[in-house]
Amino acid sequence: MLRDPSVKYRSFPTIDMPDRQWPSRTITKAPRWLSTDMRDGNQALIDPMNAEKKLRFFEMLVRLGFKEIEVGFPSAGATEFDFIRSLVDADRIPDDVFVQVLTQSRRDLIEKSFESLAGARTAVVHLYNAVSPAWRRIVFGMDREGIKQIAIDGANILREQAEKYPETDWRFEYSPETFSTAELDFSLEVCEAVMDVLEASPERPVILNLPATVEAATPNIYADQIEWFCRNLTRRDSAIISVHPHNDRGTGVAAAELAVMAGADRVEGCLFGNGERTGNVDLVTLALNLYTQGVDPGLDFSNVSEVVGTVEYCNQLPVHPRHPYAGELVFTAFSGSHQDAIKKGFAAQAQRNDRYWDVPYLPIDPEDIGCSYEAVIRVNSQSGKGGVAWILEQDKGLKLPKRLQADFSRYVQEKADAVSRELNAADIWETFEAAYHLGGGQPFQLIDYREDSGAGGARSFVGRILSDGQEQTVSGRGNGLLSSVLAALRDGYGIELEIADYQEHAIGHGTDVQAAAYVECKGCDGRNHFGVGIDTDVATASVKAILSAATAARG
Amino acid sequence: MLRDPSVKYRSFPTIDMPDRQWPSRTITKAPRWLSTDMRDGNQALIDPMNAEKKLRFFEMLVRLGFKEIEVGFPSAGATEFDFIRSLVDADRIPDDVFVQVLTQSRRDLIEKSFESLAGARTAVVHLYNAVSPAWRRIVFGMDREGIKQIAIDGANILREQAEKYPETDWRFEYSPETFSTAELDFSLEVCEAVMDVLEASPERPVILNLPATVEAATPNIYADQIEWFCRNLTRRDSAIISVHPHNDRGTGVAAAELAVMAGADRVEGCLFGNGERTGNVDLVTLALNLYTQGVDPGLDFSNVSEVVGTVEYCNQLPVHPRHPYAGELVFTAFSGSHQDAIKKGFAAQAQRNDRYWDVPYLPIDPEDIGCSYEAVIRVNSQSGKGGVAWILEQDKGLKLPKRLQADFSRYVQEKADAVSRELNAADIWETFEAAYHLGGGQPFQLIDYREDSGAGGARSFVGRILSDGQEQTVSGRGNGLLSSVLAALRDGYGIELEIADYQEHAIGHGTDVQAAAYVECKGCDGRNHFGVGIDTDVATASVKAILSAATAARG
Repeated sequence: MLRDPSVKYRSFPTIDMPDRQWPSRTITKAPRWLSTDMRDGNQALIDPMNAEKKLRFFEMLVRLGFKEIEVGFPSAGATEFDFIRSLVDADRIPDDVFVQVLTQSRRDLIEKSFESLAGARTAVVHLYNAVSPAWRRIVFGMDREGIKQIAIDGANILREQAEKYPETDWRFEYSPETFSTAELDFSLEVCEAVMDVLEASPERPVILNLPATVEAATPNIYADQIEWFCRNLTRRDSAIISVHPHNDRGTGVAAAELAVMAGADRVEGCLFGNGERTGNVDLVTLALNLYTQGVDPGLDFSNVSEVVGTVEYCNQLPVHPRHPYAGELVFTAFSGSHQDAIKKGFAAQAQRNDRYWDVPYLPIDPEDIGCSYEAVIRVNSQSGKGGVAWILEQDKGLKLPKRLQADFSRYVQEKADAVSRELNAADIWETFEAAYHLGGGQPFQLIDYREDSGAGGARSFVGRILSDGQEQTVSGRGNGLLSSVLAALRDGYGIELEIADYQEHAIGHGTDVQAAAYVECKGCDGRNHFGVGIDTDVATASVKAILSAATAARG
Repeated sequence: MLRDPSVKYRSFPTIDMPDRQWPSRTITKAPRWLSTDMRDGNQALIDPMNAEKKLRFFEMLVRLGFKEIEVGFPSAGATEFDFIRSLVDADRIPDDVFVQVLTQSRRDLIEKSFESLAGARTAVVHLYNAVSPAWRRIVFGMDREGIKQIAIDGANILREQAEKYPETDWRFEYSPETFSTAELDFSLEVCEAVMDVLEASPERPVILNLPATVEAATPNIYADQIEWFCRNLTRRDSAIISVHPHNDRGTGVAAAELAVMAGADRVEGCLFGNGERTGNVDLVTLALNLYTQGVDPGLDFSNVSEVVGTVEYCNQLPVHPRHPYAGELVFTAFSGSHQDAIKKGFAAQAQRNDRYWDVPYLPIDPEDIGCSYEAVIRVNSQSGKGGVAWILEQDKGLKLPKRLQADFSRYVQEKADAVSRELNAADIWETFEAAYHLGGGQPFQLIDYREDSGAGGARSFVGRILSDGQEQTVSGRGNGLLSSVLAALRDGYGIELEIADYQEHAIGHGTDVQAAAYVECKGCDGRNHFGVGIDTDVATASVKAILSAATAARG
């Protein structure tokens, strides 16, 4: 890297338009979407799709609700051409879906493009040529007039070919490629010339697609360019303004959104941002961004993981774990304070029961796009009590009291630090069992017990307890079950405890129901000890919880 | 997904600021960068970094030029605390680097945070509490006053603790967490209160970090929020305005850029956009975006793939193949027209020899960030002649004439369609050898030859040729070597050809040099046949090229 990059790179010039309107606007309806997955996306794959993958992709796009699909570059090779023809010949194009093909402005290529779609009910032929100074100079060695003539010549061939195949309702798209790095007045001039040749009208508008072929500036500048173009186009009502952002600066989604605010009617892109180099703009993110603003995107991503699966299969490229909405980690909270807030948010949402989604850290209800809540909270050494409690509740139905949560989080943290990896639900359960002696072999293990109620509300407890391999019968009296167990522990083992807190709840429903009991006991050393008991019998669960606390007290 | 999401989601309210200034501004110098990889990034990892990885990451950040590094959340666990202490105790913090730690506003956590850094020369303690309505209501059950008091209390403890450890020059950062979804006036009120307690001054400014904890709107709105805040802060000169965008809507990079245009002095983020959920804003993209605008980012990414390697190792998460600047595919062109333009761009760049980088489709010179040009052009069934020619030139030193490129591209396309995968350089070479019979065993194989010049410039060729396993001596006469070889072919095998084009060039330099000869011959059927010959001897190469064309002519 150069210490002073200004010797080699220039700042992109700004657009002088102090009265720009887009920064005060919001998007209130979805733009028209064009998927170019099968063209711009496909041509950027290490291994382009074969016919089987293309068909699978096409059918998925139709299912998702796409009405405009660029299906290929028919003059690029036999695979492309044959696939496109097969869509027409096998009548696979639904009535309300426009397929389109891309062509450079050369007679043989344009003819091939019409051939590929001849016989379709309706179709769009998309003509492009690059218009920016660098391309004019370096790639074509032509001046403005020459470049404009390429577009005009192409447009004339479009008209001629459309007449040759009158059974198809042909529509046209023109892209001044490299629009974002071209002089605005020249792009406009070329587009107007193409509109003239194609006799654009409000009834038969031409799609003018203005690509950020290479993203070259902050996205506000692209929005300025689009607003300038829309304001200066003489027959705005005879054109559909389309944008086609790439993502070289990582701001493709923003560029598309600001461009729609600036007047664009239509967005071209790919699912999950596939496409040349850094990709085309990601249509999934754009659609779901609208969705979370209460605007129907007109696309159905109710099962986003299925879409991820198909796209990964067809493109042989991964969707990143942090990809907005679709990545495997994007609804995941590891941090304790995040987990705690999300847990409270779900509870408040359930309680509030109003229409609006409002859960901390989750901009969309995962269920709306087919994701389960279980994936939301995961536990590592950075997690706090909230997340762990959530997992025990989700997984085991345990509703730990607050102070027990805090007690248990120490064990979890130690475990996470020790193993130095994420803890899964099984790890957490194992840690919980060990911390509160729920497995077999704990110091005070209940074999069975008998409880009698005596005169005046007094109760007596007689229990057989296995302690360190030795079976012992202990007994005690109190004004209730718990106090008689505590008396038995004192008399039998010399352990002094008093109850500081006690909670119990049912786990599950119906005949399979169990009870979970939680006690917090104060020992004679002044320290508090927590105990947990689980049993099909409510009373037995609480006896076990006390024995669990006694184990903790014995240290 | 809901057909009508407006029943569940609301549009984010806009900021009424028609005289906003940021859309007309550009970024002319780099903001201060704070890497929170070891804190916000680390806490979002499936497996958080152990001490070895943390140290590796820290040392890389220092090498890259980061001067502000958030090293952890010391109260989150022993791993965190011990690592931070070890940086201080082992004196690993360079003089010009500020380390900082994050803490919630609770006495025990703040004390722990100061303990973790006590003895450092200088350090930043970063206090935060959430201020937005949803958090106030759902997470804390508090009103504005209560929330503001949390911040004030925390700030008072910061002052008190700083006095307790006077050997360190303590600086402070305060984040009104969830700033982007909070009322602007309330965030401002809390920040002003914190500045008061901390006695912020132009000499000792407080860092006010305004997070988009969850990205909730188009990035222009975040910019509006930042501009509003900067304009309304009473003591702007006593605060460093910092932004901390997340990426829930895929517009984190744009939000940071527009926020800097709106007045932010500092950006917090992670390398390659690691962090909670969809990640923090990506500092690599931000820095290189500036670089390509001629602005020195103050960070050194001259070996970006080494950075990718370290980050992938430490985070155990991949950098996506299409990640701006760093993904393995981002300088790659598969499409024929792109390859052709890039090839011309490199040639023009070499010829022009001016200071500025201007190569189609490549927003940055790959060499500036340590990437080789070889990776730029790759070949699949969508590729045209330009890319293939480029690879043969890069790999084998062959400079194919234009028409030979076109001829050869047919073979490449067939091959790519047949194998249905990307072709590597070896595939292309193999296809080239087969197409022009450069390997052994071709129909007309030259064993040796003799050439004599006769009277009047006439030349005679006598060659031994192995053809279909049969050795034959053929001879012919002409006014030069090539015409005498053609005569020999006619007399010996009945093949009629005339030369339409002939080119030859040296391959390599010095003693190892070879010659490559290309001929295009017109056959008696009117079709053109191409031939290629390679040999250490210039004349032999051209004889071989003609035999290669003869093989093609025989069909």
